Amino acid sequence: MTLLIERRGEFAVESVSLDAIAQRFGTPCYVYSKAALVDAYSRYRRAFADHEHRILYAVKANSNLAILKLFNNLGSGFDIVSGGELARVLAAGADPSRIVFSGVGKSQSEIVQALAARIACFNVESEPELERVSRLATDCGVRANVSLRVNPDVDARTHPYISTGLRQDKFGIPHEQALALYRKANQLPGVRIAGIDCHIGSQLTTAAPFAAAFERVIALADALRSEGIAIEHIDVGGGLGIRYRPEDEPPSIEQYVHALTSRLGERRLSIMVEPGRSMVGNAGLLLTRVEYLKATPERSFVVVDAAMNDLIRPALYDAWHEIRALNHRSPEAARLCQVVGPVCESGDFIGRDRTLALEADDLIAVLSAGAYGMSMSSNYNSRPRAAEVIVDGDRAHLVRARETIAELYARESFLPE
Amino acid sequence: MTLLIERRGEFAVESVSLDAIAQRFGTPCYVYSKAALVDAYSRYRRAFADHEHRILYAVKANSNLAILKLFNNLGSGFDIVSGGELARVLAAGADPSRIVFSGVGKSQSEIVQALAARIACFNVESEPELERVSRLATDCGVRANVSLRVNPDVDARTHPYISTGLRQDKFGIPHEQALALYRKANQLPGVRIAGIDCHIGSQLTTAAPFAAAFERVIALADALRSEGIAIEHIDVGGGLGIRYRPEDEPPSIEQYVHALTSRLGERRLSIMVEPGRSMVGNAGLLLTRVEYLKATPERSFVVVDAAMNDLIRPALYDAWHEIRALNHRSPEAARLCQVVGPVCESGDFIGRDRTLALEADDLIAVLSAGAYGMSMSSNYNSRPRAAEVIVDGDRAHLVRARETIAELYARESFLPE
Repeated sequence: MTLLIERRGEFAVESVSLDAIAQRFGTPCYVYSKAALVDAYSRYRRAFADHEHRILYAVKANSNLAILKLFNNLGSGFDIVSGGELARVLAAGADPSRIVFSGVGKSQSEIVQALAARIACFNVESEPELERVSRLATDCGVRANVSLRVNPDVDARTHPYISTGLRQDKFGIPHEQALALYRKANQLPGVRIAGIDCHIGSQLTTAAPFAAAFERVIALADALRSEGIAIEHIDVGGGLGIRYRPEDEPPSIEQYVHALTSRLGERRLSIMVEPGRSMVGNAGLLLTRVEYLKATPERSFVVVDAAMNDLIRPALYDAWHEIRALNHRSPEAARLCQVVGPVCESGDFIGRDRTLALEADDLIAVLSAGAYGMSMSSNYNSRPRAAEVIVDGDRAHLVRARETIAELYARESFLPE
Repeated sequence: MTLLIERRGEFAVESVSLDAIAQRFGTPCYVYSKAALVDAYSRYRRAFADHEHRILYAVKANSNLAILKLFNNLGSGFDIVSGGELARVLAAGADPSRIVFSGVGKSQSEIVQALAARIACFNVESEPELERVSRLATDCGVRANVSLRVNPDVDARTHPYISTGLRQDKFGIPHEQALALYRKANQLPGVRIAGIDCHIGSQLTTAAPFAAAFERVIALADALRSEGIAIEHIDVGGGLGIRYRPEDEPPSIEQYVHALTSRLGERRLSIMVEPGRSMVGNAGLLLTRVEYLKATPERSFVVVDAAMNDLIRPALYDAWHEIRALNHRSPEAARLCQVVGPVCESGDFIGRDRTLALEADDLIAVLSAGAYGMSMSSNYNSRPRAAEVIVDGDRAHLVRARETIAELYARESFLPE
């Protein structure tokens, strides 16, 4: 689905003009389309057809309660990575039997919270974590369903910061140690083996690494069955890439799901997927307004009111987001420019070397900002975090109010005199 | 001053053991020393001796209210870059006549707030901003003191993200345009020329770029005087580096100040400095606890309870922070390890390839974390932000309470059903 459309000379998300949104909610503002969110979920759902599966939305991509509730109402489960995300999905009404807990650093209190909530499964990342989960579950008088996260040593060919399936990464259990650890798990009193988990990285733009990882994990499932250790599900993690640049051609949701289901053969295994970016990334944009045009002999800068504290992906991952000028200026007025924010460092850029026709007060849309935008935002330079709005047809709903300045320091106090 | 000390077998900041702080306030936790903060300010103050000067603490480095109040009580002024920082320093009781407003993207409402507060000076970054300040001041019936921020085109030889004084950077007015813009400012009804400003970057480890920039700015002041445009102060910005690695040898505060004052000659100019990192960086550490040791055939990981959301400098700038194990384990138990956080990406590391003797539940101190630590922190992975504690002698004071999980989504709401 195309998020940003032009209708009757206005730029809009669904049937609400972005000018109206900027007037009503201010800028910077994250704007999401409900229809695009529903569409992404529905495509996953349809692609699996009658294969046994579970779609577990990866909350870290965008954890806004309204988005969680929407996916929950559609039938989605959730992949969480912290006690904070557990609280969020429970607040959104999630059925605990559709919650899976991933992550390398689960604390004791987070594990106890998740046991108390009776979540579906722990994706266990290491032997000490396995022992901790078993011990805490035993203390609580329950058995925890576990998958071991296996590191398949597959190169995801993505940014090193979001590649997670190589031998040198902190994630998962080395493939050659997995069998032994499953045998150990089979003996522990507090756990029950439910599945195998893997996750090789984020923003993958080819299907081959997924297929390679899946085949390695299937082989492990077969080996385990031959030892009498039954596996019910394979959780293949997330990581399907999205189109950021017009020329990007990541696998479609349908191609991705087919790459998995077609490799199952006759095995009676449920497939779990943990999509994050591909559920929300292209369903959201960051709306921002030009504060100043600033020309130097070297460069033209467009200073906007969004900054690296709102969207850190360009600075952190050298990520490229498409930037659209929401005006009807002559293409001849376009010039090469640097789109930057007000934060006091050169790392604060939204887009480099873009050709745009802009004047002060114009609105800009930064596309593909629905994932890892708001969820990574900060208050750097004491900037309140942006508002979040979901458009549903001709209605725009504020789903996160802009922070006030006073809130930024409400938790702080002076030293005694 | 050495922040982390060992006394009677305990690791402490001033006279409070870090074990006691972890017990009382939990981890992760930022811990600052009041004495170290006072010492840094006092060294600046003493180094200027009777040269006319103003020390303007750069709030963005660490904006905790207790730190702002402490510096304010010592006589410091403030360099702010946003309406949020203005509100913070006013909440800390700052005298507006000691507040200077920097930054490339000052919005209309921020400028109006600053005019209403009657701050000392606007460091103006561009011609359109100069016009905006003049217009808004005229509307408010006042004249705004301004400095123009001149870009001296000096290579600060620091990380590209925090180098700000090169021709290609977004900051300041190109040196060759400055004279013309001063002439214009001199004609505008809403502004009064007070000074010249420059700032070439952050974490500079040699004095030569400061001296070079300062000489260029002095030459501009001389040229302006010869045209009858009087300059009262030169604001040299901030940027003095600190020692992160034991082998770092940045200029001392005294050497830095001397490099400025010794170049003034007979000129009757007040010098303003905007130190941030060198006031707070080595006055703070990040206290964190080991959750898991995780060994793979390739690597040993130490998973701690602090993460990139708490301290993003390693991921964002490839910054190196010294890491100390707060235990007395045998040096023979030390091994090469990767110190990582619980966040679900490989970019979440605190330190790479460190040789440390650690076990689960041990405490770790991440040093030199007082600047650009908490002020850049986020809630990524729905992690509440850390507590902040200031130690004063044998007392530890909570100056920012740890966020609760419920606060993370208190501003969010569901779509209507």
